[in-house]
Amino acid sequence: MRFVDVIVKKREGFELTPEEIGAFVRGYVTGEVPDYQASAWCMATYFRSMTARETTSLTEAMAFSGATLDLHDVAPFIVDKHSSGGVGDKTTLVVGPIAASLGVPVGKMSGRGLSYSGGTLDKLESIPGFNVNLSIQQFKDQLRRVGLVVAGQTPELAPADGKLYALRDVTGTVPSLPLIASSIMSKKIAAGADAIVLDVKVGRGAFMESEAEGLELARLMIQIGTGLGKKMSALIGDMSQPLGMAIGNALEVVEAVEMLQGHGAEDFRRHCIEVAAEMLLIAGAAPTVEAARSQAEAALQDGTAWSKYCEFVIAQGGDPAGLSESGRLPRAPVIEPLIAPASGYLARMDAREVGLTVVELGGGRAKKGDPVDLAVGVVLAEQGKVGMQVRAGEPLLWIHARTAASLEAARARLSNAYALSETPVTRPRLIHQIIR
Amino acid sequence: MRFVDVIVKKREGFELTPEEIGAFVRGYVTGEVPDYQASAWCMATYFRSMTARETTSLTEAMAFSGATLDLHDVAPFIVDKHSSGGVGDKTTLVVGPIAASLGVPVGKMSGRGLSYSGGTLDKLESIPGFNVNLSIQQFKDQLRRVGLVVAGQTPELAPADGKLYALRDVTGTVPSLPLIASSIMSKKIAAGADAIVLDVKVGRGAFMESEAEGLELARLMIQIGTGLGKKMSALIGDMSQPLGMAIGNALEVVEAVEMLQGHGAEDFRRHCIEVAAEMLLIAGAAPTVEAARSQAEAALQDGTAWSKYCEFVIAQGGDPAGLSESGRLPRAPVIEPLIAPASGYLARMDAREVGLTVVELGGGRAKKGDPVDLAVGVVLAEQGKVGMQVRAGEPLLWIHARTAASLEAARARLSNAYALSETPVTRPRLIHQIIR
Repeated sequence: MRFVDVIVKKREGFELTPEEIGAFVRGYVTGEVPDYQASAWCMATYFRSMTARETTSLTEAMAFSGATLDLHDVAPFIVDKHSSGGVGDKTTLVVGPIAASLGVPVGKMSGRGLSYSGGTLDKLESIPGFNVNLSIQQFKDQLRRVGLVVAGQTPELAPADGKLYALRDVTGTVPSLPLIASSIMSKKIAAGADAIVLDVKVGRGAFMESEAEGLELARLMIQIGTGLGKKMSALIGDMSQPLGMAIGNALEVVEAVEMLQGHGAEDFRRHCIEVAAEMLLIAGAAPTVEAARSQAEAALQDGTAWSKYCEFVIAQGGDPAGLSESGRLPRAPVIEPLIAPASGYLARMDAREVGLTVVELGGGRAKKGDPVDLAVGVVLAEQGKVGMQVRAGEPLLWIHARTAASLEAARARLSNAYALSETPVTRPRLIHQIIR
Repeated sequence: MRFVDVIVKKREGFELTPEEIGAFVRGYVTGEVPDYQASAWCMATYFRSMTARETTSLTEAMAFSGATLDLHDVAPFIVDKHSSGGVGDKTTLVVGPIAASLGVPVGKMSGRGLSYSGGTLDKLESIPGFNVNLSIQQFKDQLRRVGLVVAGQTPELAPADGKLYALRDVTGTVPSLPLIASSIMSKKIAAGADAIVLDVKVGRGAFMESEAEGLELARLMIQIGTGLGKKMSALIGDMSQPLGMAIGNALEVVEAVEMLQGHGAEDFRRHCIEVAAEMLLIAGAAPTVEAARSQAEAALQDGTAWSKYCEFVIAQGGDPAGLSESGRLPRAPVIEPLIAPASGYLARMDAREVGLTVVELGGGRAKKGDPVDLAVGVVLAEQGKVGMQVRAGEPLLWIHARTAASLEAARARLSNAYALSETPVTRPRLIHQIIR
């Protein structure tokens, strides 16, 4: 097989066989396929897309391109969850403890934030002492002992995906639906998931702006997972405004802790309950979605989930003294409100702009490997959510900044990120669809 | 400028600025732009194409990416000719001497054959002693002294094109009209041409199969050349059947020599006269195309062109004793006819199939760098041209092979390369269009 012929076949819009895709991926890992052929192939794939069969073949080839994790000596059935990324999305910190506390073990490999989208690893690292770098043995031991573990992706799993993603990042070939779907799914499958709940966000603060795109991505991932024998379900949720109130690493941990202690924003609470319910349902831990929701609600209210969170944080080296004292987390020195200049109804709080402001404050990364200021960020006021009535002079949000200069830059940017309406505004629908 | 942004801009279908293209090309030559970004950009260009402005910018950036040849100390006005490639196309060997003998100096950098398409350098190398590897100084000296020189492309000229073409060859990004046009034109401009006559072939034995494609390529190249201040003209000619009678390196030299001595196939003769006339006209050496044709005819008939050819071959080290004795050229040991099985009119003699048969006989290259058997090939019989009346038992062509086995393989392949018709067949139009 000449790899240039595989590129030409894709360029011409023909379907590649599983053998061709397998050989291409294996060749890429060994170096037999050079980067310049892989990038041309990715660009041809960007334009020609892929059939479901091709996408499944690519996922499988990448999933089995290196070591794979078999967690069945730890638990009989492994549920994973994946968020397509967003602004203020600290869902894992809440649904992990809920599911684990209800007997559904969660062993999760997470990522870091990039651009406006945050990453679970960064958030957890704002907890003093928390260690996300676990060996596979440590990962399995904690999963067995605690039922909950969150660590960084080890490079041994799905190395083809790691290599291809890095290449796509510098060759303008990231936004291809089959390449996105196979990248996500290959990592999940290599990490030993039996079932995957997809938390797909759509809107200005998500990678998929439209509901149609989000649905397409969700359906494609479900098709891939099902094709490879996994149980799948997906939520399509709103990311037009940030999820919950806090955006920024330590600030999001504080919000997650409040939620686990039974308080917090209604949208974030509902989102967590829905995601957790899907995880319980898919794991067979609840007979119906209604029962699953009730169990999840109860775990949040009665402190079971909170206990599991504490156990989890301590198991990964987090400072026990700081668990319920947010003062132990990094805190920005400058905290100032953004004041509503007029009365009205909040019509827009652009999630992407808020996310990019947090990046500018130092709380996120413009590019991979940038350092992150864990303390800074934005916290919305109660009236800072779309649909709320606002009075002139009230704060819409608080900016947590490192310096006065970065505060002013953030204030200027955020002044264009929201809109007020004189007439009432309906709140955006939180969950657009659930696909099982 | 981040080069990934240039790739994304092209991928999204926006027009790149001359500055962006210039920086990309310069970066590619220095290595700042790695191969994997260049190949992704080529594939995006394949799908999105380029505007005339972009193509001109790319041509200019590649033409001036290394050394350039200034031949104005040798001659005040330099005419070059470029054939888009074909089967049996030995035109340069005839029109070079005609033009040079009429006072229009021709200093040409030529290429080698690939796939079914032959290359002038290979043909010339079948002349014992002929040297195509000249220094720039030798090239200029011979041009000044003889008025005619044909050598291999030096890697110092348009290095960006050389590097990019090699990359396109292995990444499935060759067949992009703006990339093809800018590749050809950048080499011509770097080599110091003031005027370029394009000899664009269309049909089964050409890279452009349809007249529409050929016209598009010709018009694009004319637009680029004119944009960069060059005088341009183009012929669109037939390549549905081979040009002339001989296909194969030494066999084509024999045919060219016969033509220069005043004999030879009518189609090839007319083609040479038309191309030479365009060269004379564009150089201002003839007042009208009719006058240019008459001068070219005369140079062929009166031996002036033949004398110039001899001078040229000897200047480049060719054996003078072999000039008019074809016995001195390499000759295949097995020469057998392909016999017409029935009577009729020849309706098809597929140029591509004939060309590929010659490759299989060893006379061409399946891939760059393959060795070439200079002796082998195919020579059409008089009745082997489309439109001719054929009688059963007469030869359609002769196969010149190295071995009996390769003869039989060629015979089998060629048996499917032609078709006979019971009713008369019109000959294909030789020149479709001339664009000035």
